[in-house]
Amino acid sequence: MAKLKPIKINHVSKYFGKQQVLDDIELTIEPETIYGLLGRNGAGKSTLFNIITDRIPLSDGEVTIAGQPVTDNDAVLNRIYLMSEANLYPSRMRVKDIFQLTAQLYQGMDMALAQTLAEQFELNMSTRFNKLSTGSRSIMKLIIALAVDVDYVFLDEPTLGLDANHRRLFYDALLDSYAKRPRSFIISTHLIEEASNLIERVWVLQNQHIIIDESTESVLNKGFAVTGPTADVEAYTAGLNIIGHEALGNLMVHYIYGELKGDRPIPDTVSISHIDLQRLFIYLTNQEVSTDEN
Amino acid sequence: MAKLKPIKINHVSKYFGKQQVLDDIELTIEPETIYGLLGRNGAGKSTLFNIITDRIPLSDGEVTIAGQPVTDNDAVLNRIYLMSEANLYPSRMRVKDIFQLTAQLYQGMDMALAQTLAEQFELNMSTRFNKLSTGSRSIMKLIIALAVDVDYVFLDEPTLGLDANHRRLFYDALLDSYAKRPRSFIISTHLIEEASNLIERVWVLQNQHIIIDESTESVLNKGFAVTGPTADVEAYTAGLNIIGHEALGNLMVHYIYGELKGDRPIPDTVSISHIDLQRLFIYLTNQEVSTDEN
Repeated sequence: MAKLKPIKINHVSKYFGKQQVLDDIELTIEPETIYGLLGRNGAGKSTLFNIITDRIPLSDGEVTIAGQPVTDNDAVLNRIYLMSEANLYPSRMRVKDIFQLTAQLYQGMDMALAQTLAEQFELNMSTRFNKLSTGSRSIMKLIIALAVDVDYVFLDEPTLGLDANHRRLFYDALLDSYAKRPRSFIISTHLIEEASNLIERVWVLQNQHIIIDESTESVLNKGFAVTGPTADVEAYTAGLNIIGHEALGNLMVHYIYGELKGDRPIPDTVSISHIDLQRLFIYLTNQEVSTDEN
Repeated sequence: MAKLKPIKINHVSKYFGKQQVLDDIELTIEPETIYGLLGRNGAGKSTLFNIITDRIPLSDGEVTIAGQPVTDNDAVLNRIYLMSEANLYPSRMRVKDIFQLTAQLYQGMDMALAQTLAEQFELNMSTRFNKLSTGSRSIMKLIIALAVDVDYVFLDEPTLGLDANHRRLFYDALLDSYAKRPRSFIISTHLIEEASNLIERVWVLQNQHIIIDESTESVLNKGFAVTGPTADVEAYTAGLNIIGHEALGNLMVHYIYGELKGDRPIPDTVSISHIDLQRLFIYLTNQEVSTDEN
C-alpha cells in the first residue's frame, strides 16, 4: 500500500429535511493522529462520523482520500472503522461469533488482542449480544475497534456506561495499541477532561460549524480564568474575548479564550490561571454566551 | 410531620436465584445529607436502590424508618423518590403529561421549578417520551427528581448521556435545590471525580459488601501516592495498606489507603501526595489487588 494520505472533508453540509445539521465543514484527518470531536448533545457529531464513513449520504460537498471520494469506495472504506452507539449486530449472536464475523469483514483483525482485552475487561465471550448491559456493549464494540487493522478508527462515545476502572483500562489500551501500530483515532466524547490526555487535536462542533480546529496544546494555552475584585477584573479584561463569567461574592471570574494583552499591566489584585479543556468547552458552547460572531 | 428519622438498612442480603448480589448490608441514611454510592458495573448499586425504595423484595434483613419497615408502607414510600435507568413511563406520553402525572402521585411537586429547569436544559415539554434521546430522558427524570417534595431522593446514574454543560447544570441545580429545601440525596454514579464535590459521605459497594462508609473528607485524607526510587518507596510503604502501584521507569508509585506511619522518617527521595476520589476508587475496586481481607 502506498504512503497513507489524509482524509479531506471538503465543504460538507447536511440537511435532515429542512433542518440543517452541518454547514460547510472543512477538516483534514492526518494519518497517525488522535483527534477529539467535541460538541453538545445533538450538535451533529454522530452525523459527521456517519458521513465521513459513508454510512449516510451528505447533502453537499465531498469526503476524499488522495483525491478520490470515499463514497462507495470499498478499498478506502476497508481502511476505516466506525464504532457507534447504533447496535448493528444480530441480537442473538454471541460475542465470540460477532468477533469472528468482524474478522471476516476486516482482514487482519488482531484476534489475540481481542481475546486479551476481553479477559482484561471481563467480557464473557459466550454471552449473546441482547443480554449485554450498556457498558458491556460499549466494551465489546471498543475491543473490535482496537483490534481491526485499519488506518482510521472513529469512536463515537466509546465510554458510555463504563465504570471508572474500565474507562481507564480503555484509555491505556488505546494508547498501547496506538504505540504498537500508529493510526488515526477520532474520538467523540462527553468525558472531555478524562480524554484530554489522549487527544492531540481538538475539533469543536457548534451550531452546524467547526468553531475550533487546533492542537490541544494551543487550545489549552488560550484558556484563562481571570479572578479578582469585579472592577479590576472588568478593567483588565475589557476588549478580550470573554466566554464566561462567575460571581463569587465580591469577586468576579472572567473566562477568556484567546490572547491576553501582553502590554497591559496585570493589577496586583487580579490573578490569572489556565483552565482545563472541559471547562473551556462548557463556556465556548454555552448558548447564553454564543461564540457566533456573524 | 414529626422530626425526620433516618432510614436504616439492617443486615440486608439479596439473591437472584443462587447468585448472591448483596451480603449483610448495614447502612444508615441520615436526613439532609448527600451520599455517593460508588461501585463497579454490576456491583449491585441499582439492586440496593430498588430494595431500599421497595421496588423489589429483599432476601434477608429489613429496611426501616423510625422502626417501621418500608415494605408496603405508603406513608413512608411517599417521602422517597427513586430516579432510575429503568423507563417506567408510557412510551407515547408527552413530557408535560408525565410531569402532570407525577404531580398527582407526589403531592407538593414544585411545577414552577420543573418548568424553569426544563427551559434551562432546553427540554421540549411537548416531545413524546419514546422520541427523547438517552440524554434527554436523563434530563426529564432528574428534573422530576429535583421537583418532587420528598425527604429522600435516590439518583441512579443521573448523568448518563448528558454532555458536560448539562452535567454541570445538574450539579448546580441539585446544590441550589438542596440549599433551599434540605433533604437527602443518594447518588450512584460512574463520574466520581465530578460528583465528589457534592458528596458528603461515600459508600463503596464491592463483592456484595459495603467496604467503605465514611465521610468524603475522611476518605480523601486516607488516600496517598508515594513516589520515588523503587527501593526507597518499598522500604517506606512496607506494612502499609498498599492498594495499587505503578512503575514509571526507575520510579515507583505506591497508592496507600489508610494511615501512614507517623513515626517513620520519609526519605528525601520520596514524595507523598493525596489522590482524588476517582483514582482511589479505581484502586480500591480493582479485582487484581482485592481489598478482601478474609
